[in-house]
Amino acid sequence: MPAKGRVTVGIIGSQFEADIHAASFQIMPDEAEVVAVASPTPGNAKKLADKYGIARVFTDYKQMLAEKDIEMVTIAAPNYLHAQMTIDIANAGKHVVCEKPLCMTLEEADLMIETCKRKGVLLMYAEELFFTPKYVKAKEMTDQGAFGKVYLVKQVEKHFGPHAPWFWDVEKSGGGVFMDMGCHGIAFCYWFLGRPKIKTVYCQMATHVHGNKTKGEDNSICILEFANGAVGLIENSWVRRGGMEDRIEVYGEGGVTYADLHMGNALPTYSEYGYGYAVEKAPTTKGWTYPVFEELWNYGFPQEMYHFARCVRGREEPQATGEDGRVVQEVLYAGYKSASTGGKVQLPFRVDGIRRPIELWLKE
Amino acid sequence: MPAKGRVTVGIIGSQFEADIHAASFQIMPDEAEVVAVASPTPGNAKKLADKYGIARVFTDYKQMLAEKDIEMVTIAAPNYLHAQMTIDIANAGKHVVCEKPLCMTLEEADLMIETCKRKGVLLMYAEELFFTPKYVKAKEMTDQGAFGKVYLVKQVEKHFGPHAPWFWDVEKSGGGVFMDMGCHGIAFCYWFLGRPKIKTVYCQMATHVHGNKTKGEDNSICILEFANGAVGLIENSWVRRGGMEDRIEVYGEGGVTYADLHMGNALPTYSEYGYGYAVEKAPTTKGWTYPVFEELWNYGFPQEMYHFARCVRGREEPQATGEDGRVVQEVLYAGYKSASTGGKVQLPFRVDGIRRPIELWLKE
Amino acid sequence: MPAKGRVTVGIIGSQFEADIHAASFQIMPDEAEVVAVASPTPGNAKKLADKYGIARVFTDYKQMLAEKDIEMVTIAAPNYLHAQMTIDIANAGKHVVCEKPLCMTLEEADLMIETCKRKGVLLMYAEELFFTPKYVKAKEMTDQGAFGKVYLVKQVEKHFGPHAPWFWDVEKSGGGVFMDMGCHGIAFCYWFLGRPKIKTVYCQMATHVHGNKTKGEDNSICILEFANGAVGLIENSWVRRGGMEDRIEVYGEGGVTYADLHMGNALPTYSEYGYGYAVEKAPTTKGWTYPVFEELWNYGFPQEMYHFARCVRGREEPQATGEDGRVVQEVLYAGYKSASTGGKVQLPFRVDGIRRPIELWLKE
Amino acid sequence: MPAKGRVTVGIIGSQFEADIHAASFQIMPDEAEVVAVASPTPGNAKKLADKYGIARVFTDYKQMLAEKDIEMVTIAAPNYLHAQMTIDIANAGKHVVCEKPLCMTLEEADLMIETCKRKGVLLMYAEELFFTPKYVKAKEMTDQGAFGKVYLVKQVEKHFGPHAPWFWDVEKSGGGVFMDMGCHGIAFCYWFLGRPKIKTVYCQMATHVHGNKTKGEDNSICILEFANGAVGLIENSWVRRGGMEDRIEVYGEGGVTYADLHMGNALPTYSEYGYGYAVEKAPTTKGWTYPVFEELWNYGFPQEMYHFARCVRGREEPQATGEDGRVVQEVLYAGYKSASTGGKVQLPFRVDGIRRPIELWLKE
Repeated sequence: MPAKGRVTVGIIGSQFEADIHAASFQIMPDEAEVVAVASPTPGNAKKLADKYGIARVFTDYKQMLAEKDIEMVTIAAPNYLHAQMTIDIANAGKHVVCEKPLCMTLEEADLMIETCKRKGVLLMYAEELFFTPKYVKAKEMTDQGAFGKVYLVKQVEKHFGPHAPWFWDVEKSGGGVFMDMGCHGIAFCYWFLGRPKIKTVYCQMATHVHGNKTKGEDNSICILEFANGAVGLIENSWVRRGGMEDRIEVYGEGGVTYADLHMGNALPTYSEYGYGYAVEKAPTTKGWTYPVFEELWNYGFPQEMYHFARCVRGREEPQATGEDGRVVQEVLYAGYKSASTGGKVQLPFRVDGIRRPIELWLKE
Repeated sequence: MPAKGRVTVGIIGSQFEADIHAASFQIMPDEAEVVAVASPTPGNAKKLADKYGIARVFTDYKQMLAEKDIEMVTIAAPNYLHAQMTIDIANAGKHVVCEKPLCMTLEEADLMIETCKRKGVLLMYAEELFFTPKYVKAKEMTDQGAFGKVYLVKQVEKHFGPHAPWFWDVEKSGGGVFMDMGCHGIAFCYWFLGRPKIKTVYCQMATHVHGNKTKGEDNSICILEFANGAVGLIENSWVRRGGMEDRIEVYGEGGVTYADLHMGNALPTYSEYGYGYAVEKAPTTKGWTYPVFEELWNYGFPQEMYHFARCVRGREEPQATGEDGRVVQEVLYAGYKSASTGGKVQLPFRVDGIRRPIELWLKE
Repeated sequence: MPAKGRVTVGIIGSQFEADIHAASFQIMPDEAEVVAVASPTPGNAKKLADKYGIARVFTDYKQMLAEKDIEMVTIAAPNYLHAQMTIDIANAGKHVVCEKPLCMTLEEADLMIETCKRKGVLLMYAEELFFTPKYVKAKEMTDQGAFGKVYLVKQVEKHFGPHAPWFWDVEKSGGGVFMDMGCHGIAFCYWFLGRPKIKTVYCQMATHVHGNKTKGEDNSICILEFANGAVGLIENSWVRRGGMEDRIEVYGEGGVTYADLHMGNALPTYSEYGYGYAVEKAPTTKGWTYPVFEELWNYGFPQEMYHFARCVRGREEPQATGEDGRVVQEVLYAGYKSASTGGKVQLPFRVDGIRRPIELWLKE
Repeated sequence: MPAKGRVTVGIIGSQFEADIHAASFQIMPDEAEVVAVASPTPGNAKKLADKYGIARVFTDYKQMLAEKDIEMVTIAAPNYLHAQMTIDIANAGKHVVCEKPLCMTLEEADLMIETCKRKGVLLMYAEELFFTPKYVKAKEMTDQGAFGKVYLVKQVEKHFGPHAPWFWDVEKSGGGVFMDMGCHGIAFCYWFLGRPKIKTVYCQMATHVHGNKTKGEDNSICILEFANGAVGLIENSWVRRGGMEDRIEVYGEGGVTYADLHMGNALPTYSEYGYGYAVEKAPTTKGWTYPVFEELWNYGFPQEMYHFARCVRGREEPQATGEDGRVVQEVLYAGYKSASTGGKVQLPFRVDGIRRPIELWLKE
């Protein structure tokens, strides 16, 4: 494998998230190049490849892993496949970028981390909020002392339901909105505060609206207590109308800041006729809308992939790792357990033998 | 007592809240008139009386209660005095307007309600959020079906600490920020959703910053689960810099609305030189500020007092009652208990024999 | 006529603006009472009277003027009728509240002022922006020195076209959007700066969209230069989609403030199902909208009518007078002239013998 | 000179704008590399070179032009030097990136364009607003038909005064804020509307506050009338407190959009202690501030320089040219003339023999 030049990348997946990966590498093309894409449904990988000018197309990702020149593989597949794919990629001697959440179980998380370590490849955890420019600014101000000691960090992520049908199937997703988007907020608060130990997890969740489609929760509220005394408050929903909502609040003894990726960045717009694209999940482009600009950049996806490519070249240290994903996974366990018992759960928390976090909440 | 004309009012108190009462009756003067004020510290009642042209001044509120023509008395005194004052007012045959929170204990609440009933006077609970014009608009839209079934209501109220020293003393206040401002959010969610039964209460609280001044919590997060399936999320803080924050969010299966009384109503302003007044608790009027206009009106205080006066005349039915205050009181108990145990508390919840709600949380 | 008690009011008109008058007196009922309404179209006055519980109904306003007990009459009729009505009201010995703009010609303005003076009645000019709470706050801060010397004031008022058909007919309206809404901005800047002499007027206008309905301009930009060196910038449009827009900006050497009555006061709202009412001219209540609360109060209409009633009782000095309306009228003349010549027009400016301001711009 | 690989760049200048150039190439490094910097004051070029790792340093830009490998030179020097530098660069056979405004006189503009053409080099005009992501989104929506026919475009750019002392000296700058920032708005409206012919220019300007420092105007309002019937409204000030303001409004018969680069993108923030950096021209980082994130990116500077580098390689066609700069120059002339006469000026407009646009306004 080449030790310099652009990192060669393969993508597993062909839908929403895979498209984001491909687009991100295209937006910041100087450190990496996507050379292959693998997706099992015939035609899907081809379609993505055509859109982004990707040369090689596979229906079996294992064949893609046999390509010698590929150095890094990104996983944009359903959650329940993450662990096996990671292990296969690592065994092929390639670096791994795994989408969130890391996997289904803590056993999987441990095995993923251990395997990548043993094979000498990087396990990078695709938490783009660590790279979201507006949130990075909030963290910079915090680290510069703007707010003194921070005692409360909030992260909110809501929309009206997931992109792909497999999210509704808890067998494949492992859980509902807390699993799907709560993982962002957990990782965010943990990172924002400087990775202090998490002491307790409380979670309130319910399936308010989408019970006909899923056993998973469609709304969740999660409270984290950290060892340094700070608190994290995370709100997620699959029942928020009007498009995507993603925002944070930071409260310190010396100040406060608010960052809103959508309504706080948008061009308030009224259109009789509609236009190309407003924002992720927007129901229409007619009437009043909140279109955003440079959406992927403002989420931080290109910067994230750029960073991962530089990690592969040894130019940067991974800032979002399998260990981060494992911390999130433990909180997901604790959160579902808490929602079940109605009490906060102390960490470390581990239950062995379950297949997916939501089992701890579902009464079956 | 006169059966018509303007209702004659006496105020107990002379500080921040009493000033709001006096100002509110002045803003909407057609239904009531403040004729007396009572405050124990010599000179204080006189000062307020001079400011608002109030004729009669007392240092002992019991003397004020002996004035035959006074029909309604408002209580703007420390929390621990509410119950005794209410009972004295009722026994004097006058209608009662009691500031929030209603009192210290459930025993007191029951006695207040029972006494007023027995004496045939109204016990009105001064929860101004029921009259806040912007929040009323949110409720109107909700009741018109704008959002379909509402599954989540949030209310946030934060600033950097209370007006008067007695708030810091839990003997007099009964608790910290959850008692002081959480009572607003509890009442608000309950009222907004149409007073459904509250099933459970979870509360996370801590004293992050003001531990040198108080044993009370200075930040709290409270989750209510209602019998109709809806959830209330209430955030309060005495550690929010930059002035007052008071806002709500309403999420339904068919939509969402946001109402912010401060940054969402203000005139974003930069001043080198400063000016008269920006907003409650604003640290300065120089630099960037968020001044509000017609502050009391936008909180709903004049409308609230106008309503109470009309209730005395039998023109309206009380919309904020002792019973509402008792519901809040029960949630305050449950909240402190929950914060202590780390688990959600089922309602009805009652502990007898405590003197103040915070005892259920404090480990003394 | 009674020298005390509530001022008895008659309204001329029955449509949009007359409704605002009636509603405003109802919102602040303690100083005045509407006892009669007159409107020529059979049934119209009756309809308004029924809605607001107004006792007496007339189809001929002159009959209403014969009612002895009526003390003040408000004119909510098309512009071209203002002068004659004012003179008739004055001759009946009643005080006049005249909607904006004051009239059609400077001759009319002079006659209106002179007649009211001679008959000893007040000529009050219904410019509600002098009473708009948010704008009043901006003026208070300015007068408190917040911004040092103010060198630029902007006022913007836009929507997608007038309420009533007569506005499109320049014979009845006297002009397009500059006449209809520019009169607000002119009055506002003049009042806000403390009524300095206006030196010059420049105006750019065009009929961009509604040429099939009107000869009047549907967009205008107006620049005023004041004797104290300050500048006014006024933007108006009948081609702004999405509802009403009304906002100001104030720039001083020491600071700046922004006040927006609509998007800056609203509850950003998304509704799948719609709801009762969002805001003046809003095209829909579905999708994203910017509903306002207490709309009339936030414009200042009730406060304005309350003030006028108090002026009749001699409790306050009129703050919006026929003289103010005359200043606006002169600027309207100058503005149309400027739009015609492409050069700024020096004040004082007077052209005799025209019937309506827009003649100075229209090339017929 | 190399026909491929990264374009080698030299920068003339070492202060505010030169720093932006250097930073921009660093942010998007894949198409160009800064290899040299020239600035006459000893030490200045060195300082910039050290900050950005630029290898070669010159005090005489002509020496830098002798470097064979340099392909493109950017001019970040006072306005009065632009023309001569451009000609020197072109004569050295290198491509030119010239900061705004293009130059001092129309004669210079013509000579610059002609010389570059003759020497076969590109004359690229550094108008970053053509690349500002949020504004580009507004243009995309417009071009997709969101607003139907656009009849009014506004651009506002204001702060409290320029970075470098030479701006105050109209001999070096050619004019005040209209020259300095009005050039942005003129170019923006022209570009946004698709470069229709400009028919007339009206300008109101005054020196309200900074008369002790400059003969130049410190506030200007400019109205453009385009051949397609649309109007441009451009507001500029050197007397806006509280930091930078840069925003647009687009009004079409079918809709409206608002884009604000500062308050509309910021993280509303309160800090007791301050922090690193808020935004260009912000007076402080304490109290309430509106910090922006990724400031250069959100202005579009890196994208602009990236584009220019690609133009040099023939991969893109220049989107901001000397011809654009010349159009702006003609409007600057017309604007100052208009401010002097008080009438709108028809284009084409040319006065020969002046040395700087402001002469047409200044009465000396």
